[in-house]
Amino acid sequence: MAGRPAVLVGGTISDADTLELYDLACALVKYGTARMDLVVPFFGYGTMERATRPGEVVTAKTRARLLSAIPMAPGGNRVFFLDLHSEGLPHYLEGGATAVHVYGKPLVARAARAIAGKDFVLASTDAGRAKWVQSLADDLRVPTAFVIKRRLDGGSTRVAAVGAGVEGRRVIIYDDMIRTGGSLIGAARVYRDAGARKIDVITTHGLFPGDALERLRSSGLIGSIHASDSHPRALALRDGFLKVRPVAGLFVQALEETS
Amino acid sequence: MAGRPAVLVGGTISDADTLELYDLACALVKYGTARMDLVVPFFGYGTMERATRPGEVVTAKTRARLLSAIPMAPGGNRVFFLDLHSEGLPHYLEGGATAVHVYGKPLVARAARAIAGKDFVLASTDAGRAKWVQSLADDLRVPTAFVIKRRLDGGSTRVAAVGAGVEGRRVIIYDDMIRTGGSLIGAARVYRDAGARKIDVITTHGLFPGDALERLRSSGLIGSIHASDSHPRALALRDGFLKVRPVAGLFVQALEETS
Amino acid sequence: MAGRPAVLVGGTISDADTLELYDLACALVKYGTARMDLVVPFFGYGTMERATRPGEVVTAKTRARLLSAIPMAPGGNRVFFLDLHSEGLPHYLEGGATAVHVYGKPLVARAARAIAGKDFVLASTDAGRAKWVQSLADDLRVPTAFVIKRRLDGGSTRVAAVGAGVEGRRVIIYDDMIRTGGSLIGAARVYRDAGARKIDVITTHGLFPGDALERLRSSGLIGSIHASDSHPRALALRDGFLKVRPVAGLFVQALEETS
Amino acid sequence: MAGRPAVLVGGTISDADTLELYDLACALVKYGTARMDLVVPFFGYGTMERATRPGEVVTAKTRARLLSAIPMAPGGNRVFFLDLHSEGLPHYLEGGATAVHVYGKPLVARAARAIAGKDFVLASTDAGRAKWVQSLADDLRVPTAFVIKRRLDGGSTRVAAVGAGVEGRRVIIYDDMIRTGGSLIGAARVYRDAGARKIDVITTHGLFPGDALERLRSSGLIGSIHASDSHPRALALRDGFLKVRPVAGLFVQALEETS
Amino acid sequence: MAGRPAVLVGGTISDADTLELYDLACALVKYGTARMDLVVPFFGYGTMERATRPGEVVTAKTRARLLSAIPMAPGGNRVFFLDLHSEGLPHYLEGGATAVHVYGKPLVARAARAIAGKDFVLASTDAGRAKWVQSLADDLRVPTAFVIKRRLDGGSTRVAAVGAGVEGRRVIIYDDMIRTGGSLIGAARVYRDAGARKIDVITTHGLFPGDALERLRSSGLIGSIHASDSHPRALALRDGFLKVRPVAGLFVQALEETS
Amino acid sequence: MAGRPAVLVGGTISDADTLELYDLACALVKYGTARMDLVVPFFGYGTMERATRPGEVVTAKTRARLLSAIPMAPGGNRVFFLDLHSEGLPHYLEGGATAVHVYGKPLVARAARAIAGKDFVLASTDAGRAKWVQSLADDLRVPTAFVIKRRLDGGSTRVAAVGAGVEGRRVIIYDDMIRTGGSLIGAARVYRDAGARKIDVITTHGLFPGDALERLRSSGLIGSIHASDSHPRALALRDGFLKVRPVAGLFVQALEETS
Repeated sequence: MAGRPAVLVGGTISDADTLELYDLACALVKYGTARMDLVVPFFGYGTMERATRPGEVVTAKTRARLLSAIPMAPGGNRVFFLDLHSEGLPHYLEGGATAVHVYGKPLVARAARAIAGKDFVLASTDAGRAKWVQSLADDLRVPTAFVIKRRLDGGSTRVAAVGAGVEGRRVIIYDDMIRTGGSLIGAARVYRDAGARKIDVITTHGLFPGDALERLRSSGLIGSIHASDSHPRALALRDGFLKVRPVAGLFVQALEETS
Repeated sequence: MAGRPAVLVGGTISDADTLELYDLACALVKYGTARMDLVVPFFGYGTMERATRPGEVVTAKTRARLLSAIPMAPGGNRVFFLDLHSEGLPHYLEGGATAVHVYGKPLVARAARAIAGKDFVLASTDAGRAKWVQSLADDLRVPTAFVIKRRLDGGSTRVAAVGAGVEGRRVIIYDDMIRTGGSLIGAARVYRDAGARKIDVITTHGLFPGDALERLRSSGLIGSIHASDSHPRALALRDGFLKVRPVAGLFVQALEETS
Repeated sequence: MAGRPAVLVGGTISDADTLELYDLACALVKYGTARMDLVVPFFGYGTMERATRPGEVVTAKTRARLLSAIPMAPGGNRVFFLDLHSEGLPHYLEGGATAVHVYGKPLVARAARAIAGKDFVLASTDAGRAKWVQSLADDLRVPTAFVIKRRLDGGSTRVAAVGAGVEGRRVIIYDDMIRTGGSLIGAARVYRDAGARKIDVITTHGLFPGDALERLRSSGLIGSIHASDSHPRALALRDGFLKVRPVAGLFVQALEETS
Repeated sequence: MAGRPAVLVGGTISDADTLELYDLACALVKYGTARMDLVVPFFGYGTMERATRPGEVVTAKTRARLLSAIPMAPGGNRVFFLDLHSEGLPHYLEGGATAVHVYGKPLVARAARAIAGKDFVLASTDAGRAKWVQSLADDLRVPTAFVIKRRLDGGSTRVAAVGAGVEGRRVIIYDDMIRTGGSLIGAARVYRDAGARKIDVITTHGLFPGDALERLRSSGLIGSIHASDSHPRALALRDGFLKVRPVAGLFVQALEETS
Repeated sequence: MAGRPAVLVGGTISDADTLELYDLACALVKYGTARMDLVVPFFGYGTMERATRPGEVVTAKTRARLLSAIPMAPGGNRVFFLDLHSEGLPHYLEGGATAVHVYGKPLVARAARAIAGKDFVLASTDAGRAKWVQSLADDLRVPTAFVIKRRLDGGSTRVAAVGAGVEGRRVIIYDDMIRTGGSLIGAARVYRDAGARKIDVITTHGLFPGDALERLRSSGLIGSIHASDSHPRALALRDGFLKVRPVAGLFVQALEETS
Repeated sequence: MAGRPAVLVGGTISDADTLELYDLACALVKYGTARMDLVVPFFGYGTMERATRPGEVVTAKTRARLLSAIPMAPGGNRVFFLDLHSEGLPHYLEGGATAVHVYGKPLVARAARAIAGKDFVLASTDAGRAKWVQSLADDLRVPTAFVIKRRLDGGSTRVAAVGAGVEGRRVIIYDDMIRTGGSLIGAARVYRDAGARKIDVITTHGLFPGDALERLRSSGLIGSIHASDSHPRALALRDGFLKVRPVAGLFVQALEETS
């Protein structure tokens, strides 16, 4: 091991996973690895990237700091992330550690083609991800739609689909991460109400805690869900409804391009 | 100076300003200041917070790193920012330097009340800032609207106002920063075409390079612009059309609350 | 909270506890605490303080490094440990973080007096802790005994009690930590075989995973076990056999003496 | 020198040696060495690895910190220690410097074989090193013995040899370091009184300040002393009674295995 | 770029240049350059290398700290300076960054030979650079002269040339940097008054702000000025009077010697 | 000690002194001192502030780095130096440690007044210190002189006094440090040959190794030498010829001014 580059693949699914990744990387550097590459398919703290209330702990930052505390290998320490919830996260690292943000676009594109060929509307769950979905849709040369909450004068809220018309069209909703799927179901309902012919879902990170997947399935709104295997839960639940694609190839390519 | 806390107010308007701020802070710490508080009303690198093309320099990170390289005062180094373009930016700082993100909401609220009392629609320039404008509108108990680009099937684009109806209503557009004002004029046109009765603009950071302000004024779309004095250009151009409010009070309050 | 010293009491019972302690301390410093004191009654990695096989991870070091990665509060960061398994551990911390090693001697002394007054032999589980038990016994002015494995010529091993004679005497075994209690039962058997009249046990850190406590109880060798409340498991299992004493007072005293 | 790995062999015999080692390593890194390996046969601060009285300076830590302050070479800085008094010491290093703890076991084994073939008892000076001597004896497949102080009820102390019987046997005492040799003479007397036929001594670090060696020789208890050449004093005093073996081979092997 | 060494040539002519150099170097390291070599032909802060009045900012130090804040490339970061005003400046760098002080002597020697062959007096502007000029003159095997201010008893000052006689001789004045040229004209006048036959000037860094070069030319005291191209102003003003020689070769040689 | 500022006075006379200073400061910080002020009357590495030959160790830098490796006290670490040989040295410190350069001018002024009242020429040993002596003389309102080596055309060297005429005048030579005194005797001879009526010497740091003081005395050129007590050797040798003044007051004043 001494004198040779090391690639350590580890999740941050749980705190124990995170500390195991940190411990092993520390040990590898201490035992003389030439370069320390951490592959983190799922960075579980990505949605806690800022304090929304005073006094909140920004775990995305404290964990980025944790990864930055691994001693530096002679050839450098790099952390490879996949489809982070926020573009700023790679810059939370400190000192000499370098972040590489790997984008799952090729995976999403392949899934979209497999689902619906070339004729579909790429939709997002909410306005927050609209920019990213737009960029993806441009690459795929398909129109986009998204869902907004319209707060009306009286204080009431009405949710509506905007963008390309979805009536009679196939719709593929992309979201970077699915947890309980609540907002996803809400969005699917809007698209269906707007006349979408068939709705499928693509996500990078499928967590599906508890019976989340069952609720998505039994909503009757979604034809299929395509996730990556970045989270072990997605892998564990895979079946005819939840299809899972491997991310290994994306990381291998990123490792090769930066070596 | 030795043994007493120091508050250094400086912009990052130009590279020379940035380095002067850095140099002075270094010197204050070396000469023994008890605590080093940097007040940065305008963090000019905030829109370069991520690489949009491979190889790009993320100056928001390199400048945050620069501020983090100031030697630590015994009582700590803190950087106070105002209405940053991205919520993640405070976490770009490294080591022991602490960021305090000051929000200009009170300023915006006062300006909005002064412009239109209680009856108006708070609008945003584009979807990217929709979330922030929504939060502001909730505080002000007014409805919101925003502008989206609808990419249609044929590849053409149509811009439209969505959200609360603006027909016959007063509209106040908020944007955190105005540079050339191009997209602001575009949005104002959409709101006017949608029937807005009168349109005013509030911004935190008014840069108005070259003849930007003149073009905004002569567009005939905007009744008035209200900016803070975070950028010297806003202060220099103030007149009946461009009204400027001081941010000092916000920083004083933030300094007091965190001491 | 800003400007005031913070004392954060946290265990390192599980990885989640460890990361919670780390996260909270990071947040307290970022939000402006004047001094950051971490009270760690149980440092769970203390027995992994060196690599016994090539390639092993020395978690005592990686976790000390983790605590050292907490940003420094203006008044300094200090970590208070209790009865560490190895005297060298405080020096595993790096940079500016300071370790204070609090000794549970007063607690042990009070427990010993409560169990057996002044007339007993203080015994240790194995030779490794003999030095520490000797120092404790000197303070209590009682004789000591310990157990050694005698490897005989033929390769066979015989365990024996050495030191002060224990025949007809009350014996109190002290061990800094009890996990499964296997070696403790072995030592108690040796002391009983050597004629000890009654055997009680004092420990600082009682972990008792699974049915460890039951096995100790049902061994019939031990009259009672006295532990501190440094580990929640000891607190949860307390009863007539397992008596638990609070460590808070020791930490309060250490905090006062060093402020 | 620039671009090539450097191995710097230096002692920490005196403060001047320590600083020379530090200065040269700093210079080698500044002038561009590719990797900085420090070989420290004798780490003179190893016995001051913890504070035994409040306020004491733990020089083992301050000097480890000193070695950690050498700027990092691109290929990393490593410090090779030999038979440290405490297993925790390598982890006193900070930041990116890596410690390699080289064990002198092969040297001790060869010396033991040369002294007494296969039939001897491996003994230790006191209980503190019993564990290490035990491990060595296991490798050599010989029985072990050690000396304990038995504090008796009346407060008096009796020293005794325990472990394998030594009567009529050859005894080889191993101690990691010999300074004045006081406790070594005490232990040898115990073994002789217990009937040892012939007593020889092996040590890694022979310091023998003043007339220490003469007093060991004239005690009439010890047939010969075998030391390594880790300390120049051992080399200077070598004669028929004090035999010295080179450690260079051990370090060469360790350097090769970790490159 | 990833995995390959990078050489970045940049000036510190203005603050914008300095920050561009810093930004690009940060980015190159982040994008994976194997080694980061900064070539800084003109370090504009070299004359502010100490505080002459209390409270002054020592920009030479703050900018050295800035360069030291660039994240370390795996193969190390090096900064190549040319003819620094003070020999101590390379040691202002911190952490792992290494300075290489390149001397322009070969350039000066070639210029001197081109101007006056072997028969001339090498003179300095003031006593401060006398040591350096002396060393240069020794290499060139020519006599030296310099100018001193003689403070006389009455408080008046008289300037005089000392050293080798200059009467009827060709004189070449060397100064490491020419800004306004005021003291240079003063020195030239002294040498001419002392009988110098012809006076030429060599400098490493020619800044010539405003009409400085014109004033030097029109003084009628100086036959020609030979500068390096370390500062763009020298390059921009080059003509028959101001001759400019490239420094690239010196840096190439230094880069080769240290790789 | 915990919670209170500490002032540690220590020399760097020998390597053992240097390491003792470092060790004690490390310990004081670890045991909780509120602020760590190091008073270093004699920084013995000050004359090795740059490499004069390739490969030389710049001990002034490595030792400054050593002092910078002391962990930071909450109230900061400061190092107080006296009359450093080079003005750049304070900036060799790294990280958060702050240098304060205390000037011995008041001491020199008092000594000069005591020796010769108001009527004397302040002279320097060589051109290198001319600037500093000039500044001192301006404060004292006396004329200055110094000695230069005139390299003549034929390669021969002639030493001469320049500056104010010294014939028939009292001359006081100031040098920041006297080691063997060789160049001092040379300078005194030049001043005497130039007609100086009486010559005395003031120095800040008097080292006088071996019989250096005796050789100065027996030269018959120097009436008396006035040194500070910054070096213990000066204190040990004090007599009618070598007068010693305490520096404590200067440091006390500097400590007070910066607290």
